[in-house]
Amino acid sequence: LDIASLDTPVPVVDLGIAERNMARMQAYADAHGLALRPHVKTHKLPGLARRQVALGARGITCQKLGEAEAMADGGLDDIFISYPLIGEAKAERLAALAARATMRVAVDSPQGVATAARAARHGRTIGVVVEFDSGGRRTGVTGVEAAVALARAVVAQPGLRFDGLMTYPTTPATAAFLAEALPRLAAEGIEAPVLSGGGSPQALRTHETAPVNELRVGTYVYNDRMMVAAGAAALEDCALTLHVTVVSRPEPDRAVVDAGTKSFAADIMPGGAELGYGHVLEYPEARLDRLSEEHGMMDLSACGARRPEVGERLRVVPNHVCPVSNLHDRVATVRDGAFQGFVDVAARGRTL
Amino acid sequence: LDIASLDTPVPVVDLGIAERNMARMQAYADAHGLALRPHVKTHKLPGLARRQVALGARGITCQKLGEAEAMADGGLDDIFISYPLIGEAKAERLAALAARATMRVAVDSPQGVATAARAARHGRTIGVVVEFDSGGRRTGVTGVEAAVALARAVVAQPGLRFDGLMTYPTTPATAAFLAEALPRLAAEGIEAPVLSGGGSPQALRTHETAPVNELRVGTYVYNDRMMVAAGAAALEDCALTLHVTVVSRPEPDRAVVDAGTKSFAADIMPGGAELGYGHVLEYPEARLDRLSEEHGMMDLSACGARRPEVGERLRVVPNHVCPVSNLHDRVATVRDGAFQGFVDVAARGRTL
Repeated sequence: LDIASLDTPVPVVDLGIAERNMARMQAYADAHGLALRPHVKTHKLPGLARRQVALGARGITCQKLGEAEAMADGGLDDIFISYPLIGEAKAERLAALAARATMRVAVDSPQGVATAARAARHGRTIGVVVEFDSGGRRTGVTGVEAAVALARAVVAQPGLRFDGLMTYPTTPATAAFLAEALPRLAAEGIEAPVLSGGGSPQALRTHETAPVNELRVGTYVYNDRMMVAAGAAALEDCALTLHVTVVSRPEPDRAVVDAGTKSFAADIMPGGAELGYGHVLEYPEARLDRLSEEHGMMDLSACGARRPEVGERLRVVPNHVCPVSNLHDRVATVRDGAFQGFVDVAARGRTL
Repeated sequence: LDIASLDTPVPVVDLGIAERNMARMQAYADAHGLALRPHVKTHKLPGLARRQVALGARGITCQKLGEAEAMADGGLDDIFISYPLIGEAKAERLAALAARATMRVAVDSPQGVATAARAARHGRTIGVVVEFDSGGRRTGVTGVEAAVALARAVVAQPGLRFDGLMTYPTTPATAAFLAEALPRLAAEGIEAPVLSGGGSPQALRTHETAPVNELRVGTYVYNDRMMVAAGAAALEDCALTLHVTVVSRPEPDRAVVDAGTKSFAADIMPGGAELGYGHVLEYPEARLDRLSEEHGMMDLSACGARRPEVGERLRVVPNHVCPVSNLHDRVATVRDGAFQGFVDVAARGRTL
């Protein structure tokens, strides 16, 4: 089998590029004394997570219990779930995970503390960090008082270990929050050994942005069109491309490829839907401008005389690579242009 | 187990609503002499496809070979792939399918005809319809000449049976195209027994739009927020809701639920992203206005004093239900409020 004979659409991961990306981020973390804790949401592959740890990462980050379970099954033994777990069902699963891996979770509410405490009743200590908001307006407390109150609640719970603070993404507001929160915690005698920030686009500026000591990044392993647009990667740094086939040429200025939102996801660029849904490496002037579930419509009006024909295979860099991993049961891998095999996306679809 | 104890996020299908939707569309098709050929892309469940056939559907429609394979595994034996299949790998799989089900495919290029002909060389007749464009600007020939040329090419191929014409969606342009194409085909002695149109939002106006005799519809079985916005369904007709849990209340006007694009997909309403990503049944004034992969941010500013609390469960009608089916390994089913069980989404992720 070679890559050109694989049935399409198929996501293809260039392992050489992925390894270069991993090594670069690890070198940055090492140079600045940051504990690298890669987020597996991008690749969802235990094999790549193990590789990240082998290169120096201090454990991994997951967003959902189901991802953490898949990673523990794959031998990962130090897992941070950077997401609020709420309720009895989550507590039981967290307890089961804690019996086979070092677990840390994020909280931003008393109910989150209660869930972690319930898990810890099964006998394993659960590490807890308090999430604060650095302007992303997602989860995370918005004020220092709330963070200190939650830290106090964690410290008061037997079985929980207060590990520190986390945020996403790392911004100047992170520094401002920490400058206010750390003296307040110290005044209460509460240590915060872990100060965890994240986000791939701004990762290499972490040391000049805020005094965090842990770096959570996911997208950097593959990169994507959004990373390129943010100036954080070049097209040559994009490790995952979707290989597609032109299946229709109904008009001179239109080609249709065999992949739509079911393969690319529907994520649009920060600049808007008019920026299209991917970068076509063979025809950079073409615009993949409309997707339905299984159709990808390309506007060829800016192309020259050479235009894609029915049956032609193309490689597309997706806008946002993380949901692409989530949409495919397996990825093909390639090294130096040679097909290596298929790898099951073990943590795909782990919404629970 | 009852529905309220299921771990979230979980898609829940109300079987009573789905059956009412199926019966209504079958009655419409029967009343207007249309052969109903439901598109399984919405539910991706062989069990519901069998139910559609039992109610009177003349076979089913799939978009991909992988979906057709899953449906053939589930006992469906008359399958139309309304999508251009191109190349050797697809031809071999089509031939294997034709050995166990009556198969029809759509073509809009000579390469499509060649792929079907190659499949037919294995000994089973393949039905072929020519796809034309009714203004959707996706696949499908844009002119009558091209359609007639392709029909001629199909007729000339041993092993292929020219079945007629198809389009998506059915529009006034469909009628105009057919008015020109059918006499041209007749003049060449080519019969076109199947005239296939589709699209759920406008399905119940098919008889007054164009003289098609086959109706391909998918979304009608579940309905969704887009169908409601189009006036083609009421909220009470929406059979699939995503059940989620509030996991964070960082500000008085913001709640965060445990489902983002990985559970809802990122499809935006025709009116734009500002219309949000779903209708929250318990808090219709709330706006599910931002999604990241695992976070759903709700703007509560229009809500009254009663607001969702951390741990509260909510039911959300998604914008577009088809990709929701594709994102979940299984759905929970309910009838008259009682949990029935889980059903594997057998044709999920069938991108090939």
